[in-house]
Amino acid sequence: MNRFLRSSWSRLLPGVNRLPSSAQSYRHFSRFEGDSESDSWKLMEGLVRCPANCVPLSPISFLERAAKVYRDTTSVVYGSYKYTWSQTHERCLKLASALSQLGISRGDVVATLAPNIPAMYELHFAVPMAGAVLCTLNARLDSAMVSVLLTHSEAKIVFVDYKLLDIAREALDLLAKTNTKPPILILIWKWDDSSPTSFEPGAYEYESFLETGHIGFEIRRPKSEWDPITVNYTSGTTSRPKGVVYSHRGAYLNSLATVFLHGMHSMPVYLWTVPMFHCNGWCLTWGVAAQGGTNICLRSVSPKEIFENIVLHNVTHMGGAPTVLNMIVNSRVSDQKPLSHKVEIMTGGSPPPPQILFKMEELGFSVNHLYGLTETYGPGTYCAWKPEWDSLLPDEQSKLKARQGMQHLGLEEVDIRDPVTMESVPADGKTMGEIMFRGNTVMSGYLKDLQATEKAFSGGWFRSGDLAVKHPDGYIEVKDRLKDIIISGGENISTVEVETVLYGHPAVLEAAVVARPDNHWGQTPCAFVKLKEGFAVNAQELIRFCRDHLPHYMAPRTVIFAELPRTSTGKIQKFILREKAKALGSLF
Amino acid sequence: MNRFLRSSWSRLLPGVNRLPSSAQSYRHFSRFEGDSESDSWKLMEGLVRCPANCVPLSPISFLERAAKVYRDTTSVVYGSYKYTWSQTHERCLKLASALSQLGISRGDVVATLAPNIPAMYELHFAVPMAGAVLCTLNARLDSAMVSVLLTHSEAKIVFVDYKLLDIAREALDLLAKTNTKPPILILIWKWDDSSPTSFEPGAYEYESFLETGHIGFEIRRPKSEWDPITVNYTSGTTSRPKGVVYSHRGAYLNSLATVFLHGMHSMPVYLWTVPMFHCNGWCLTWGVAAQGGTNICLRSVSPKEIFENIVLHNVTHMGGAPTVLNMIVNSRVSDQKPLSHKVEIMTGGSPPPPQILFKMEELGFSVNHLYGLTETYGPGTYCAWKPEWDSLLPDEQSKLKARQGMQHLGLEEVDIRDPVTMESVPADGKTMGEIMFRGNTVMSGYLKDLQATEKAFSGGWFRSGDLAVKHPDGYIEVKDRLKDIIISGGENISTVEVETVLYGHPAVLEAAVVARPDNHWGQTPCAFVKLKEGFAVNAQELIRFCRDHLPHYMAPRTVIFAELPRTSTGKIQKFILREKAKALGSLF
Repeated sequence: MNRFLRSSWSRLLPGVNRLPSSAQSYRHFSRFEGDSESDSWKLMEGLVRCPANCVPLSPISFLERAAKVYRDTTSVVYGSYKYTWSQTHERCLKLASALSQLGISRGDVVATLAPNIPAMYELHFAVPMAGAVLCTLNARLDSAMVSVLLTHSEAKIVFVDYKLLDIAREALDLLAKTNTKPPILILIWKWDDSSPTSFEPGAYEYESFLETGHIGFEIRRPKSEWDPITVNYTSGTTSRPKGVVYSHRGAYLNSLATVFLHGMHSMPVYLWTVPMFHCNGWCLTWGVAAQGGTNICLRSVSPKEIFENIVLHNVTHMGGAPTVLNMIVNSRVSDQKPLSHKVEIMTGGSPPPPQILFKMEELGFSVNHLYGLTETYGPGTYCAWKPEWDSLLPDEQSKLKARQGMQHLGLEEVDIRDPVTMESVPADGKTMGEIMFRGNTVMSGYLKDLQATEKAFSGGWFRSGDLAVKHPDGYIEVKDRLKDIIISGGENISTVEVETVLYGHPAVLEAAVVARPDNHWGQTPCAFVKLKEGFAVNAQELIRFCRDHLPHYMAPRTVIFAELPRTSTGKIQKFILREKAKALGSLF
Repeated sequence: MNRFLRSSWSRLLPGVNRLPSSAQSYRHFSRFEGDSESDSWKLMEGLVRCPANCVPLSPISFLERAAKVYRDTTSVVYGSYKYTWSQTHERCLKLASALSQLGISRGDVVATLAPNIPAMYELHFAVPMAGAVLCTLNARLDSAMVSVLLTHSEAKIVFVDYKLLDIAREALDLLAKTNTKPPILILIWKWDDSSPTSFEPGAYEYESFLETGHIGFEIRRPKSEWDPITVNYTSGTTSRPKGVVYSHRGAYLNSLATVFLHGMHSMPVYLWTVPMFHCNGWCLTWGVAAQGGTNICLRSVSPKEIFENIVLHNVTHMGGAPTVLNMIVNSRVSDQKPLSHKVEIMTGGSPPPPQILFKMEELGFSVNHLYGLTETYGPGTYCAWKPEWDSLLPDEQSKLKARQGMQHLGLEEVDIRDPVTMESVPADGKTMGEIMFRGNTVMSGYLKDLQATEKAFSGGWFRSGDLAVKHPDGYIEVKDRLKDIIISGGENISTVEVETVLYGHPAVLEAAVVARPDNHWGQTPCAFVKLKEGFAVNAQELIRFCRDHLPHYMAPRTVIFAELPRTSTGKIQKFILREKAKALGSLF
């Protein structure tokens, strides 16, 4: 019970009638920032748009709210370091303040070259809070690519992890050679024991730089919720990377949609196995703040660390490309730990083979399959589970779950359409078309490449370049990349289907199928395979295995045993394999 | 595994290069509807705003998505009637089509006078889909009030439940007398056995009217997401009702925020004990569709029906004013049923007394306390539970839970401020101020009452008229309505605190405290009390009980045993009690 209240209230009450007059308070209402191209909302009399009822959507609000509602809850963990939401909020305010003192203004680009360390998390809020645009470079790029992207993005500052300092320095040297003004380099090494190899006095260092900022910094909110918040360069499956621009509005909406599709309750514990530099960690950098969760940061990902962190921190949710699942499934038993509760894991990037889904469940994970592209802020569709599937056999379940499913809450529509006629394909599970997206969580465009933007949006839809079918229940299933599909004797061969069969062979660890030129058939399937340790099998055996499980024309004609080239996010780089297959020449 | 695919794909592939040229496809992009008052998003080169990446937010999208993702899941249940999401979607399309055939155009108001029957649920989507604005009148209003609100809203159509037909007819007769063109009446009686008392042939009836519509109706989406979606007249705690206007954007965001604060997982089962006519059912009419849940409709609410429906349908979530909680807690044991799982119940309207919270938990409910006003789309704050409270004594827990807590995800800021200086009060748990809101889930304004709108928003915040304190942990606690607080001898007395003590007395079923004029003290507390059946206690005993638990000046000087007047949503009508107390005259 509250005790005797001695407030100044009785003194104040008579003043209620002295409210500021409407003339004074409404001076700025008519031109408030917001959507007003259409004035149809004014059709009804008595309505206004003002700071009380109209605020540009931005994930910055998630942090501010978390600092209030989840004040003393742990926000970020990295090794022995721990922060609370109130601390993270204060640190981001200081960092934003320091950035603005260094001359960063609205619309400037601030880049990073770092793995999943606490600084990466903080920069996802601090950079937008300074009014700037965050550009998280892939931490596995080489110095040449880094210099290209720094030039293209016109980054004013680049935050660099101490282990990547040499690559960054080389990139800046390359810039100097082309007379491009290099960005200011700020080194991050606070959270690790070892000190950087060559850190000159006078250079900027993350923690001391942050300390120059002020807690009272006034956040530079977006003027419009359509303002850019980040630029994400697509990882190198194409030789020419594109800078995909996200808006505050899209980031806000996709964060919430991802939290929903992940089934994230209040205060989840999220293990960062998805790189934060990849689609801003599928928008969960912001999403975890929305739910006041705890971010467990990991510099690098290994099965041992995954299991240890799950048990130590009671991890509830995590994510990862099929490579991560593969790594977990094929890990040494001594690295695994029994899990006391189901861990929700979202996987995306490419369809997980049924065998891997099945083994993950056995280990105590509940796998949620999603699909999307950098252009759709990461997650766009997910395979929403239906209660009636609970009673199916595990094999049937795995097949259903390997499908890409349906759009999440943030998207307006996902459809499979004929890329020429723009007609929807029938939901027959057979007719292929291109996956197309429409909605608020589709990118604003490719930075400085209006032509590419317009091409991607032609027809009023975002064209994914992925081929899929629509099943009778409406769920979509990716069959291939538009450029990966093999046409053999006039028949389409989905490389994904052939790979799925190969993964079903007990000796196969990894498999990728591409087209090999063929004088007779036009193209034939060529498989690149990596075997599990201790297993031996030859090409003929694998080909026979495929012919037993597929129409004969779909079985590979060639099998090559090799290490598979991957992008930093774990995607197999098929264009490299295609080059290799081409170099083999025609079979006949 | 998918079998041999014979698609028309190989025929189509060569056409990929025949994409429509950007010149053609971009003709309409530059003037796309959306927020572009601020053009700051154009600072970066290469970005566009077009139908592919920009769609006005609207809850209509939730229904369209539910019809795809949750197609065969049960959407609405009423007695023996059951619909799936695909059926509900089709019915809403037909209903929207029928409305437009009847002449309803963009911005027209369509009213309802009905309890929680399936038609009410369908109209929440169908009316906006026809481009119109839904006005759900309180089903407990008298004909005079109905006629006033039909006139004020200029409703073109009114949908009337067969049991409320007489009231509606009287209201229309009243309109005829003032030469106001009455709205078209459409009678709803499909779902009940009894037929309406006097239904003339030729008059409109809901189901046959719906059947005149077409499934291929092209939805009239909002031109701007700021377009009005509903008008909600505030219930009569003031003598002059106000028409609170909601926008598509606000409804979308508050639906998601309410789903979040309610901890609603995918496919919840929601029992409709909150009237849908009240803040559009706290925005869960739309929110349940967002999560593909099942709506259990109830014509009227009794403890027996609540328990029966929970068990029959496996209800996971429900809501209700403290009256509903009171009803459950004080129900006959023969009406109660053991619950096999925790049922999440959200309560709001006024702070639930700790005793009731405690008993609800014992019965198997998990109570979530929220706070808001019609002007904040219903839910605005909620008492977010903290894990560290788990170990507290039940009594402590109840006290913490009775607080109004913190803003939900959809709001930007909730603060307690001095209404004159607009300064935040200190977080000392003592200093009172007015609760103020700022964010996208604050109303667009009061229909046709710009003056009231501007007054409510003066200073750039929505002023709730509620008095509260801010606790050291930042959580707010409502102390009173600004107009309810009692000032006795210069000291503030929170009527809520006195009522909480009265509820602690074993004989008290309901209690309300108001000011009684007093020549000496200015005002003194006057308690109106309803006792539980079979209990007897006199005024002196209750006054003594209060003096034992409160500072003496806060204890009531007068206790009157009576039935408490309530609004249709269960709020006690203090203005009536204040009149009664005034009529008693001064004590001295």
